Amino acid sequence: MKKLKRSGRLVDMTYFLLQHPHEVISLTHFSERYQSAKSSISEDLVIVKEIFEDEGYGSLLTISGASGGVKFIPRIHPEQAEEFVNEVIEQLAVPERILPGGYLYMMDLLGNPKFIQRLGQVFASVLANQKIDAVLTVATKGIPLAYAVGQYLNVPVSIVRRDHLVTEGSMVSINYVSGSSKRIQTMTLARRSLAPGSRVFIVDDFMKAGGTIRGMMDLLEEFEAELVGIGVLVESVGVEERLVDEYMSITKLSNVDVRNKTITVEAGSVLDLLKTVELEENK
Amino acid sequence: MKKLKRSGRLVDMTYFLLQHPHEVISLTHFSERYQSAKSSISEDLVIVKEIFEDEGYGSLLTISGASGGVKFIPRIHPEQAEEFVNEVIEQLAVPERILPGGYLYMMDLLGNPKFIQRLGQVFASVLANQKIDAVLTVATKGIPLAYAVGQYLNVPVSIVRRDHLVTEGSMVSINYVSGSSKRIQTMTLARRSLAPGSRVFIVDDFMKAGGTIRGMMDLLEEFEAELVGIGVLVESVGVEERLVDEYMSITKLSNVDVRNKTITVEAGSVLDLLKTVELEENK
Repeated sequence: MKKLKRSGRLVDMTYFLLQHPHEVISLTHFSERYQSAKSSISEDLVIVKEIFEDEGYGSLLTISGASGGVKFIPRIHPEQAEEFVNEVIEQLAVPERILPGGYLYMMDLLGNPKFIQRLGQVFASVLANQKIDAVLTVATKGIPLAYAVGQYLNVPVSIVRRDHLVTEGSMVSINYVSGSSKRIQTMTLARRSLAPGSRVFIVDDFMKAGGTIRGMMDLLEEFEAELVGIGVLVESVGVEERLVDEYMSITKLSNVDVRNKTITVEAGSVLDLLKTVELEENK
Repeated sequence: MKKLKRSGRLVDMTYFLLQHPHEVISLTHFSERYQSAKSSISEDLVIVKEIFEDEGYGSLLTISGASGGVKFIPRIHPEQAEEFVNEVIEQLAVPERILPGGYLYMMDLLGNPKFIQRLGQVFASVLANQKIDAVLTVATKGIPLAYAVGQYLNVPVSIVRRDHLVTEGSMVSINYVSGSSKRIQTMTLARRSLAPGSRVFIVDDFMKAGGTIRGMMDLLEEFEAELVGIGVLVESVGVEERLVDEYMSITKLSNVDVRNKTITVEAGSVLDLLKTVELEENK
């Protein structure tokens, strides 16, 4: 790369940091990349840090020592998160979503990469200080959400399936009871797709009684993996017996009135959680 | 937002443009956001444009006229793409991937959000000048790839399923013949999830005879949608009768020798295509 002036360095640095979240980037890396003194690089980073933190894009942690450098932690400002959650609520409450049986059509939202990215950003923001090795979800609708979280946390995604595919090698299967229908079902995860001892965040689009998520938790035990947290886009409230205790949700769906065509949605627990997440360096 | 100096504007602008690919952003927007004169904004954009284009991050098109502004088109430099494709080839050729039946385990690659993002960038780069309204894929493994392309092109994703889900409302189903096994199968797409007349890019992780992709093409006709292109991560060569003519591939798999544990992979057609894509403004 040719030698750059500060203005050029700032553009390139911003691009680079956004592509490498949760990675320690050494000052030497930037210093060599731009053929500039480390003191200049440090000054650049102060500018980037100020904008990122003022605008709520995330924080830029300074890691000192021999292997030191900076680390970009993507975050979302609690106010922007609240605005986003309110938008989600408004969109979910549109009566045209109601399908026979009281289901809600959500593929317009789940099919929108920008929406999914924003969700990923919100979850990753709550998890900013946690050590996470992998994101786990179940096919099909949780997949895009899991990748968005994985992208912001810079960790791989593992996908649990309800069928058994020959193209994934040896699989670990468990039986689980679907909470609402009480039917026994099977879920599988490729042996190779999750390292033993991994610290895992589970994510899904929808949770009713929580049978599917409970199943994924049981599956984690088979992999000797550790559960760090659970996140869902929509939790259905008013469930008699919930199979999962601790989780965060973007929204809570309390009622779908098929006859009067009304949907009652409110904010989930994620907003309160966001406010409790302190930056590591502020501790 | 408070008034920013050039250095701060450059950081914020870079962040903003990366979040809004393929969208026209008016000079007025930036001018108001930073409380700065349009002439200063124009100078900022020249700096951003130079870095983006020199480093191969994409192009910044200037749109003149009353509704004018700038548009960020994410791209990848052909050399970087070649480097990436070579890395993919190297990774795919690892003998440990071979599964019984000659299948290849690919979830380590497909489960890596960074890898998936890079693939999306390559496809979006070839499609930089095309008008595309939606990306279509089939569950399960094509999904992350489809979202990465959709994210870079800033268009929604539609997911074809092999089962029929009650939570997606009315579905359009077709039968198709799986090219390799010659079995008749069914695929469905929610009526609401693709607007009639959409211009569609189809993407999947793997193509052998092309039966699944042929099925998606037939499904597009049911939606009166138009096919713009097809992209796959791996095409299996040496197929007797290919059901799809025009497509691009990242890699070509010509042989999996289960006994000697060797995999023969080479670069697909995407690299040559990339070189032929000219910037709109250079035409």
